[in-house]
Amino acid sequence: MSSSLPITERSRLRRLHQRGHFDRDTINGILDAQPQCSVGYVIDGKPYVTPSLQWREGNHVYWHGSSASRTMRHCKEAEVCMTVSILDGFVLARSGMHHSVNTRSVMLFGKAFKVEDPEEKRAKLANFVNGLFPGRYESLRRDHDQDIKATMVLGMEIAEGAAKIRTGGPNDEEADYDLPIWAGVVPVTTHIGAPIPDERNLEGVEMPDHVGALKIG
Amino acid sequence: MSSSLPITERSRLRRLHQRGHFDRDTINGILDAQPQCSVGYVIDGKPYVTPSLQWREGNHVYWHGSSASRTMRHCKEAEVCMTVSILDGFVLARSGMHHSVNTRSVMLFGKAFKVEDPEEKRAKLANFVNGLFPGRYESLRRDHDQDIKATMVLGMEIAEGAAKIRTGGPNDEEADYDLPIWAGVVPVTTHIGAPIPDERNLEGVEMPDHVGALKIG
Repeated sequence: MSSSLPITERSRLRRLHQRGHFDRDTINGILDAQPQCSVGYVIDGKPYVTPSLQWREGNHVYWHGSSASRTMRHCKEAEVCMTVSILDGFVLARSGMHHSVNTRSVMLFGKAFKVEDPEEKRAKLANFVNGLFPGRYESLRRDHDQDIKATMVLGMEIAEGAAKIRTGGPNDEEADYDLPIWAGVVPVTTHIGAPIPDERNLEGVEMPDHVGALKIG
Repeated sequence: MSSSLPITERSRLRRLHQRGHFDRDTINGILDAQPQCSVGYVIDGKPYVTPSLQWREGNHVYWHGSSASRTMRHCKEAEVCMTVSILDGFVLARSGMHHSVNTRSVMLFGKAFKVEDPEEKRAKLANFVNGLFPGRYESLRRDHDQDIKATMVLGMEIAEGAAKIRTGGPNDEEADYDLPIWAGVVPVTTHIGAPIPDERNLEGVEMPDHVGALKIG
């Protein structure tokens, strides 16, 4: 059975007629579809939004960066808002007012925590890499202890937030359907191109299947 | 000659070895390539990030929403951070540590202002629509005064911020180039699909050329 997040004042922030989704399956589906995310945080009362990549493990999302990064150090133990947004298409209506976009988005709110234990951190980073390219992490040169130390992994419980989804064609005003104006949807998708091998790959090293497994959007 | 934004403490927030770009041509190029944006703001000391669409006019960016939206009302006259981020590919290195993504991103900081004059607002919305679909706005049922009233247009001067760009293949440690590990880049692009006409389009209404003009990413 799908469980739901609580509906809080901030999780129902957006226009009421654009109903939010609070069930975990919907939220998880969007998080799993798109690693690209925006992490919002506050320094000296002012807003900052840093693009990052997230990955989900159960009821938590994680992201990483340099241990030396001011952004990462500020997010640690701080309130953050993580947003993931996927653009699925432009909706062309018969009036400017009813133009829209088809999107799937999630906003999550919570306090970020730092993954302290080096082996737990390594396991999280392995899950991040393997989530995009199954099995790749184990095929790599093992991360040096210093690499792990230089990397900060932050996590946040998926406990407060909401998804928003728009699909389908334009919703015009009834009278406007009589107008000779072209309306419709221009779909937008993420295209994964043919992999480009590094020119310093050793001879005879073939591209592993996991490289072609990437699927986002 | 290309002018540059001032380098401030917050605009050089990100890791120093990933050099920021402050010239306006680079920043404008990224803003013009991708309308999808994330708007960060602060309510009661806590961060919020709302996905939106931006468009640029000279040295300003604009975005819009419902006049009734709590988000829009909070951003008005408030400090905001707008981020645009385009994912161009995944960089697969020989160690987990050196995996990366090719991206183009912009962070902008400033105070949002509200476009008050209805005719100025209408002109801005026309620029937004026409920026994606040249000439479309004039082909539409004219927005009712009530539509314009129900829409809030916010703007921000492009005065403080930075772009960040990563391109190319992996940068591995010299010793790791001897390892028999496949490295390379998996390119990611935005694909615009074939337009889907609304089923209630009137007979004989042909798809205008501007529908096929959309180009983002």
